[in-house]
Amino acid sequence: PGVVALSDHEARARTGLDPNTWAYLDSVAGDGLTRRANRAGWNALQLWPRVLAPLAGLSTEVTLAGSRLAHPLLVAPLAHQRLLHGDGEVASAIAASAQQAGFVLSTLSNVPLETVAAAVRNDQDRGPLWFQLYLQADRARSLDLIRRAEAAGYEALVLTVDAPVNGVRDAERRAGFRLPSGVVAANLASTAAGDGTLAGLLARAPTWADVEWVAAQTRLPLWIKGVLHPADARRAQALGVAGLVVSNHGGRTLDGTPATAQALPQIAKATGGTLPLIVDGGIRRGTDVLKALALGASAVLIGRPVGWGLASAGALGVSHVLRVLRDELEAAMALSGVTSLRDMPDDLLDPNALARQTACE
Amino acid sequence: PGVVALSDHEARARTGLDPNTWAYLDSVAGDGLTRRANRAGWNALQLWPRVLAPLAGLSTEVTLAGSRLAHPLLVAPLAHQRLLHGDGEVASAIAASAQQAGFVLSTLSNVPLETVAAAVRNDQDRGPLWFQLYLQADRARSLDLIRRAEAAGYEALVLTVDAPVNGVRDAERRAGFRLPSGVVAANLASTAAGDGTLAGLLARAPTWADVEWVAAQTRLPLWIKGVLHPADARRAQALGVAGLVVSNHGGRTLDGTPATAQALPQIAKATGGTLPLIVDGGIRRGTDVLKALALGASAVLIGRPVGWGLASAGALGVSHVLRVLRDELEAAMALSGVTSLRDMPDDLLDPNALARQTACE
Amino acid sequence: PGVVALSDHEARARTGLDPNTWAYLDSVAGDGLTRRANRAGWNALQLWPRVLAPLAGLSTEVTLAGSRLAHPLLVAPLAHQRLLHGDGEVASAIAASAQQAGFVLSTLSNVPLETVAAAVRNDQDRGPLWFQLYLQADRARSLDLIRRAEAAGYEALVLTVDAPVNGVRDAERRAGFRLPSGVVAANLASTAAGDGTLAGLLARAPTWADVEWVAAQTRLPLWIKGVLHPADARRAQALGVAGLVVSNHGGRTLDGTPATAQALPQIAKATGGTLPLIVDGGIRRGTDVLKALALGASAVLIGRPVGWGLASAGALGVSHVLRVLRDELEAAMALSGVTSLRDMPDDLLDPNALARQTACE
Amino acid sequence: PGVVALSDHEARARTGLDPNTWAYLDSVAGDGLTRRANRAGWNALQLWPRVLAPLAGLSTEVTLAGSRLAHPLLVAPLAHQRLLHGDGEVASAIAASAQQAGFVLSTLSNVPLETVAAAVRNDQDRGPLWFQLYLQADRARSLDLIRRAEAAGYEALVLTVDAPVNGVRDAERRAGFRLPSGVVAANLASTAAGDGTLAGLLARAPTWADVEWVAAQTRLPLWIKGVLHPADARRAQALGVAGLVVSNHGGRTLDGTPATAQALPQIAKATGGTLPLIVDGGIRRGTDVLKALALGASAVLIGRPVGWGLASAGALGVSHVLRVLRDELEAAMALSGVTSLRDMPDDLLDPNALARQTACE
Ligand SMILES: Cc1cc2nc3c(=O)[nH]c(=O)nc-3n(C[C@H](O)[C@H](O)[C@H](O)COP(=O)(O)O)c2cc1C
Ligand SMILES: Cc1cc2nc3c(=O)[nH]c(=O)nc-3n(C[C@H](O)[C@H](O)[C@H](O)COP(=O)(O)O)c2cc1C
Ligand SMILES: Cc1cc2nc3c(=O)[nH]c(=O)nc-3n(C[C@H](O)[C@H](O)[C@H](O)COP(=O)(O)O)c2cc1C
Ligand SMILES: Cc1cc2nc3c(=O)[nH]c(=O)nc-3n(C[C@H](O)[C@H](O)[C@H](O)COP(=O)(O)O)c2cc1C
Repeated sequence: PGVVALSDHEARARTGLDPNTWAYLDSVAGDGLTRRANRAGWNALQLWPRVLAPLAGLSTEVTLAGSRLAHPLLVAPLAHQRLLHGDGEVASAIAASAQQAGFVLSTLSNVPLETVAAAVRNDQDRGPLWFQLYLQADRARSLDLIRRAEAAGYEALVLTVDAPVNGVRDAERRAGFRLPSGVVAANLASTAAGDGTLAGLLARAPTWADVEWVAAQTRLPLWIKGVLHPADARRAQALGVAGLVVSNHGGRTLDGTPATAQALPQIAKATGGTLPLIVDGGIRRGTDVLKALALGASAVLIGRPVGWGLASAGALGVSHVLRVLRDELEAAMALSGVTSLRDMPDDLLDPNALARQTACE
Repeated sequence: PGVVALSDHEARARTGLDPNTWAYLDSVAGDGLTRRANRAGWNALQLWPRVLAPLAGLSTEVTLAGSRLAHPLLVAPLAHQRLLHGDGEVASAIAASAQQAGFVLSTLSNVPLETVAAAVRNDQDRGPLWFQLYLQADRARSLDLIRRAEAAGYEALVLTVDAPVNGVRDAERRAGFRLPSGVVAANLASTAAGDGTLAGLLARAPTWADVEWVAAQTRLPLWIKGVLHPADARRAQALGVAGLVVSNHGGRTLDGTPATAQALPQIAKATGGTLPLIVDGGIRRGTDVLKALALGASAVLIGRPVGWGLASAGALGVSHVLRVLRDELEAAMALSGVTSLRDMPDDLLDPNALARQTACE
Repeated sequence: PGVVALSDHEARARTGLDPNTWAYLDSVAGDGLTRRANRAGWNALQLWPRVLAPLAGLSTEVTLAGSRLAHPLLVAPLAHQRLLHGDGEVASAIAASAQQAGFVLSTLSNVPLETVAAAVRNDQDRGPLWFQLYLQADRARSLDLIRRAEAAGYEALVLTVDAPVNGVRDAERRAGFRLPSGVVAANLASTAAGDGTLAGLLARAPTWADVEWVAAQTRLPLWIKGVLHPADARRAQALGVAGLVVSNHGGRTLDGTPATAQALPQIAKATGGTLPLIVDGGIRRGTDVLKALALGASAVLIGRPVGWGLASAGALGVSHVLRVLRDELEAAMALSGVTSLRDMPDDLLDPNALARQTACE
Repeated sequence: PGVVALSDHEARARTGLDPNTWAYLDSVAGDGLTRRANRAGWNALQLWPRVLAPLAGLSTEVTLAGSRLAHPLLVAPLAHQRLLHGDGEVASAIAASAQQAGFVLSTLSNVPLETVAAAVRNDQDRGPLWFQLYLQADRARSLDLIRRAEAAGYEALVLTVDAPVNGVRDAERRAGFRLPSGVVAANLASTAAGDGTLAGLLARAPTWADVEWVAAQTRLPLWIKGVLHPADARRAQALGVAGLVVSNHGGRTLDGTPATAQALPQIAKATGGTLPLIVDGGIRRGTDVLKALALGASAVLIGRPVGWGLASAGALGVSHVLRVLRDELEAAMALSGVTSLRDMPDDLLDPNALARQTACE
């Protein structure tokens, strides 16, 4: 009782988790400019609703890279979910499946990728099951992860490219955050670290050549996560990737980037509307989802709110978070006069909205 | 003593009502973006006053769809007024009449529409008496309401079209708000509910065809309440409605819409200045009323402040709220050099005000 | 000790005065939008300083309507100064004179205009001594005031035109503010009230015809105080007034007007730079004075801060307020590379400053 | 432990210093508009990062007026550092040297310039060692300082021109700030004061002629510190200065200037990209440094944060402050896809960023 919105799960997580773990979940880079910009970006977009349209048959279905989804919500890859709940990634995967949401498992999961996949792979009606890839210190290790993901049944790879080094995460560092014993990166051999110096990290930061290499190793669709610059979007498109996740990592890597609500329409324009786009960062309401789709995304990732739900009530909490968002999306559609997300009206957002937002926030 | 502005009634209502009822009266959808935008919209418009004009004979009279009104204030339809005061809608109707304000009774009144009408119908000098219509689960029930409203003496129908489903009203849901026993929708048969599922609601959401149907059933003037998009305004105009209420339901349905102060001038432009327009949402000062009229409205609805006055002091409270607004309007006119609301100067608001507001809020 | 800025006098006045008197001094109309806009207006203007200019001989002198002033500061007309200090208007007039500042006595002074004039008329080096005129219920009474002001040695008349009726001053009304016995409008016969109804006030509100009438009665220069609209400025100019005070009465009459920093340059443009302009409203720092002059004013009026100083320490307090402002003005000039206020550089404010401010505040 | 960002040193300094000394270190002119604008200016600039670029060999090296620097950080001239720590300027100079940062000694140092230079002059790998010059009451004294600086091994002169008179520093004046006995301007003869009146200060305020005179006295490169107006930048360039420090003195002199992030690109444009530019004011994060370089600066000065570090932990504190900034800069570069500061991409900041910022802050 009393838990009706995502922010209620946030409040429960904030009080329920020990401060160090909360610092990890909540953390931002620098002064949090990007996180604030993400929220402000969605809020600045105004919905101009249509009334009196027939609403019967309203549906949240979308088509994502050729597949039908019950709705456009996917769980974002979040490392170390056993910090938040003993069941870790299994709980969130099951919840996603129960809500027909997509699920993207992080390379840095605390439960082996095979275990997570086994828990949901055969569910009827589940959404997409994808694996998020962090390139490893050497290609053999990366290839091993790819092969395991393929074997376990993951249906796409999501290569995260916006975190070659750690962001400046003061709160975590002030809290002296470290993984407690027993919480491990279960997909990685404990000897896997590689050269941990900055020079080492920089030397093996992913490059466009790595994207081509990964694409050549697998027949899974390859998504690139962490693109903001239209020029990078065009380059990825030229390489033939399956799609892009327009993301600033929720403000946890580089602080001071544009909001994803600002970058998304510019990328949609740069890629001509043919490349599938997913967006994340600060999506907290069904109206945000509707706005994201109006700007050209086919789906959205939900990050911290999934962590809140997991910390708040395990699989049930995640399930509730996704259900609330979907219900809110349906309400937003009905109140905007939108019956299909596949066929968004082009005047739902003020045509000048983007210009305005860009000009004056 | 000490009660001089609408905000004083708000403070009294907030402390006087039990938290659940306050949550109902005060409630907004989502994060309250639209409610804030409504206030910010009026505040952003700047009055450029003229001095030294002869002020004798200054009058707040307006012409609304052909009728003379002592001033441009109407009480908005507010459901369930017995939650706020035992006398419910009778109190607010009497207060409106005493202040020569218009009164719009909600379909969801707690006092039968006949009782309310009987209480004021024969008052000298009262303002318009209108009935707000929510379409019912079947046309027979809707027609029954229309016929009863006609018979009771209501002078226009106001069809509300911006609430086909409930808004996401967290505060109310957190408070677990429910109507207490004894407070009922007095105009509706208790069996009237119909299919309460989302699909049910969507299936019977009002459509343009319903507007035509209602218009064909009655000779009462038909207003549409809840229009923001200029394209919808044009369509309603083409159907021959009596006028529009430019409204976002005070931010209680879809969150994230434009402020009504933004939508109003766009609708005025789209409809060419010939369709009567009323506006509501966040009007709290006489200067707001003056600005609304400068943007093209013929009159305004007052929502929550009427609820505050009713909770604060029954009919006397509502009466005071309306009186304060009218006095403030007169002062604003005198201080702006405006002597007639029928003939607003076109440079009272900076000609660039709207552009500016749209560009930069 | 510790009193170094105008805000220190404000703090002293706030704690030293009884709440009712503070409510009077501090009062604003409506929600205080105009008062805030006044401050924001000055703050939004950016000074682009020049360095390495020779500064020897820097002088704050200005020419106001042909007369040389030691600096551009004048005390604004403030009614009822005995509320703030027992010496009332005599204290502030003496302080102004000691600081070579101009002084404008309100019609509503608590000390007879003759007494105030006698206290300072013969001071060497004092600034201008002007009388602010509120038109009275009949012309005979107004003419009497004019004749008395002439006889007492006032050097100009300032006709205030932006207060035909009272502003909506909630704080004062909540506090139930009334003049205490013994504090009276010393220039007016106690029987002078006239028809106090709104209709009465409106009927005798000053008009352009009254301006012509006043101008014809006296050889004193006639200023109009309270103009914001460029069209009114042009009309006043056509009537041959001595100058204008661009003012919104410090936000005490109509709420929601433009800031004076917005109106001033538009009026300067409309009147072609030949009509002397004074500005007031929210001037609290020497940099504000410099900005006002850069926008086209020849001098500024200081309102509430004079009241703060008077309440804080009588004549000494007012004197200190004026001294601080003048010192700050000198520092601002030196740090901006401006040596003469008579010859302001035209690129001290960004040429685009006004456009910007207008576009986006 | 727990000290990970510059703001942690700020908090330590605020609590560790006595209030008077804190008032000195923290002080701003007027209402602090310029200080806030400085921070807002950097924050408003958005980084549009590039991904998947090869990052190996990333380097923070820059070329400043022909010399190679390990990174673009220099310690700003800060008067009276023994107020902050007993070791005073020696501590900060040693810390700068240890971190390969440049160091600019203030004329008003509490340690003789020879002592400071001797402490670091022979360090391998140290950054530039410069002397900041305030012109003295007569040229003989100024020349004496110049000769001593040359003899001691300073490698450039930085003539500060934005402080001909003191700023309006209320907090310091309220605190009654005075130098404690034993803390002296060690480079100046105690009899050096000269005419301390405003007229005296103005008469000897530095002029363009003085710039030429200084340039003629020395073969050291001459920088001008405190330029904001593009016209002044052009004039300095015409005189052949070594470079400019675009600065508003951290908001301690004239309040209400543009942010340095606003002035910098205008000066870069006015001087055609050939004159070396340094910028300071509100730089608190590695991302700020990256933005400054993207706008055309070759290096940055760090002011108050060095004072925080010094007060917080002496040389170690300053060293940590510089180290943190450099580490953050490296992270910002890696996360933006920038490998060399000498060759900044021209689309790292949105091309329209400046226009936007100027238009809408
Ligand atoms: C605790 C946490 C862990 C994360 N771990 C990963 C990760 O392992 N891989 C990845 O690509 N993104 C990771 N992210 C980023 C998310 O996938 C996503 O981009 C971001 O959270 C979206 O923003 P939001 O949190 O505002 O919804 C993480 C985010 C959080 C909050
Ligand atoms: C408590 C409450 C109940 C309402 N009930 C109705 C209703 O039954 N029908 C309707 O058309 N609008 C209803 N509204 C919306 C109002 O008619 C009006 O559009 C809105 O309150 C105007 O905004 P304001 O409250 O800011 O003045 C209701 C509003 C409130 C606050
Ligand atoms: C307490 C008080 C009394 C005032 N009385 C008068 C008055 O009698 N006549 C008048 O023309 N203006 C009057 N004003 C307005 C001032 O002359 C002036 O326009 C205004 O105070 C300027 O704004 P500021 O207070 O922000 O400096 C009064 C203002 C205050 C604060
Ligand atoms: C305590 C203090 C003392 C300063 N003393 C001097 C000085 O003696 N000479 C000078 O040119 N600038 C001086 N400055 C200004 C700095 O060199 C620099 O321009 C400014 O601090 C940069 O802004 P920041 O503090 O926001 O980094 C001083 C600044 C501070 C905070």
